[in-house]
Amino acid sequence: MGKTILDYETAELLDNVNKIRIIDQTQLPGRIECIELETAKQFWDAIYLLQVRGAPAIGVFAGFAIYLLTKETGLPKEDTRENRAENFAALRDAFEKKKDYLNSSRPTAVNLSWALRRMEKVFLSCGENDRLTMREIVERLHEECVAIRDEDVEVCRRIGENGLALVKPGDGLLTHCNAGQLATIRYGTATAPMYLGHERGYNFHIYCDETRPLLQGGRLTAFELSSAGMDVTLECDNMSASLMKTGKVQAVFVGCDRVASNGDAANKIGTSLLALAAKHYGVPFYVCAPTSTIDMSLQTGDEIPIEQRKPEEVTEMWYAKRMAPEGIKVYNPAFDVTDHTLITGIVTEYGVARAPYTESLREIFAKKDAE
Amino acid sequence: MGKTILDYETAELLDNVNKIRIIDQTQLPGRIECIELETAKQFWDAIYLLQVRGAPAIGVFAGFAIYLLTKETGLPKEDTRENRAENFAALRDAFEKKKDYLNSSRPTAVNLSWALRRMEKVFLSCGENDRLTMREIVERLHEECVAIRDEDVEVCRRIGENGLALVKPGDGLLTHCNAGQLATIRYGTATAPMYLGHERGYNFHIYCDETRPLLQGGRLTAFELSSAGMDVTLECDNMSASLMKTGKVQAVFVGCDRVASNGDAANKIGTSLLALAAKHYGVPFYVCAPTSTIDMSLQTGDEIPIEQRKPEEVTEMWYAKRMAPEGIKVYNPAFDVTDHTLITGIVTEYGVARAPYTESLREIFAKKDAE
Repeated sequence: MGKTILDYETAELLDNVNKIRIIDQTQLPGRIECIELETAKQFWDAIYLLQVRGAPAIGVFAGFAIYLLTKETGLPKEDTRENRAENFAALRDAFEKKKDYLNSSRPTAVNLSWALRRMEKVFLSCGENDRLTMREIVERLHEECVAIRDEDVEVCRRIGENGLALVKPGDGLLTHCNAGQLATIRYGTATAPMYLGHERGYNFHIYCDETRPLLQGGRLTAFELSSAGMDVTLECDNMSASLMKTGKVQAVFVGCDRVASNGDAANKIGTSLLALAAKHYGVPFYVCAPTSTIDMSLQTGDEIPIEQRKPEEVTEMWYAKRMAPEGIKVYNPAFDVTDHTLITGIVTEYGVARAPYTESLREIFAKKDAE
Repeated sequence: MGKTILDYETAELLDNVNKIRIIDQTQLPGRIECIELETAKQFWDAIYLLQVRGAPAIGVFAGFAIYLLTKETGLPKEDTRENRAENFAALRDAFEKKKDYLNSSRPTAVNLSWALRRMEKVFLSCGENDRLTMREIVERLHEECVAIRDEDVEVCRRIGENGLALVKPGDGLLTHCNAGQLATIRYGTATAPMYLGHERGYNFHIYCDETRPLLQGGRLTAFELSSAGMDVTLECDNMSASLMKTGKVQAVFVGCDRVASNGDAANKIGTSLLALAAKHYGVPFYVCAPTSTIDMSLQTGDEIPIEQRKPEEVTEMWYAKRMAPEGIKVYNPAFDVTDHTLITGIVTEYGVARAPYTESLREIFAKKDAE
């Protein structure tokens, strides 16, 4: 039997050979091709070319990358107390240069700059401790990037457990876009209950919205879940109401980009329409949200800015020839906000929040702070 | 200024040169290319290759075609009372042969066989009247095919007037799929209020769902309405809720394939999801339905069979390379049924029916019968 998606991590640190191995997502859904990267240019390209994509996965990848680049390019041959200040200055120069370079690969990716800042914070605080050798500082960077990776896996796993408790074996589960393993390191968020259930023989029937305009559902989610051996059916986004009417869907799980304190959730365009159908047909609608995506400073989803993307995604991409008239205007928002009244529960790594969300989300954060 | 869609009819009889001129729809949305057809093979190909498409347009085209073929191939040089029986038998042979041939071009198209049967009925009834010459019988066929065409235009125009009375200048109007001029001879059904309003300076803002999987909204509706000079914006099907939330849509007009006596309406897949969004955002949702599509023998929409189409429409078509994993299962219904509770009104050529539809549709047919 061939290897499946679960035999790989989306990005994996091969520390002994100073490389990062990733699933090259530009080859999907055709085949699983892993590539090993080791130069700064290769790391930059991997992010820029979307060989690695998905906010959490990019963050982890960037942590690995800045660690390897600092380790390889910045370490002095002689590392003594006498030349420490000079050595640290050189290492810091290397770190900052590589950090800025990596950061330029996808400037709007929040997790990219977040992970690099987190690595920088560790690096600079080590610098202030002059008992540490350069090699030890690099080792601290190694620990930190592995911690970022481990936290990502653990958050997804816990979201998976909490989500799995909401469904039962044999259920039909519908998802939208790709909040899957390919966007994280393992499990994904919306897909985590599916992976964990699959490992435990739940025999789910999975339905994937293809998710126009960029087809992440068809190209990525349908691919990764079927590759993992699940029973997967693909549908166009406009078919969800028809599908729910047949009674084949017992729950909807979607990811999210940002959740406001009242529970309004911004996610890939089409999510709110799906939520309306779920409400109408009495299907529970769950938003899977790591607490890192919940922004308690926002009162409602109206405060979340929605990116309008280029018309060509709708009129040209994915098509052998132009599929709409020349010069036509296009409405192409990347996301929409699902009103909290349409959401049955918000599944986090600290449990499932339910209405009223203003209270339940506060309790989630109280649990997090207490940990 | 170049010609627009309104300078043409979807199919037009050029009787003096024994040809039918059509807009070649396989060239859309690239350009308006008219072609003139005169042989039986050309007529058959035009239907089979979808150069002419849309149930009403195919019906009118088939009427023109059987008329021209009977006129051209079946007329005896000598037409006297003495050889009448023999002449009619020959003409009938030609008629039946051509009728069966045309009918085989798209066996499931109801309007194709309906129009051919209507022409046959006129032909055979003329045959029973032995005062008519062969040339006069052919002239009756001419009158009948022109009547089919005129009725189509008139029904659409009246639906347009009735629909136009439901909206006001400057409104944003949303439509799904192509229930446009290109599916009829002029005006279309769902687009008829838009064309009539446009002629009267209503300055509508039109929004078109692209309508996956076959993209009739993007390829045809967005094309024909913008070609006619309207302000048209294209969107992916999953964006309708987001769009309605902005307050830009004042009414939805869709076509239909079949309406049950309780008002449940079967139309292109995605229509019912759109109706849910309209209901949620308080946007009136109108189904434009010639009385010929209202089937009073059906109690509810559950009795309408829904065609499942081939997976490749979702996984391969319209795309330079495969856009979903090999072997993935696909849910691909061609239509869905919109529950009558989600429909604000059913716009027919005899007025607008509103809930309770069981009564209002009966009144519509009473008006029709009284005419």
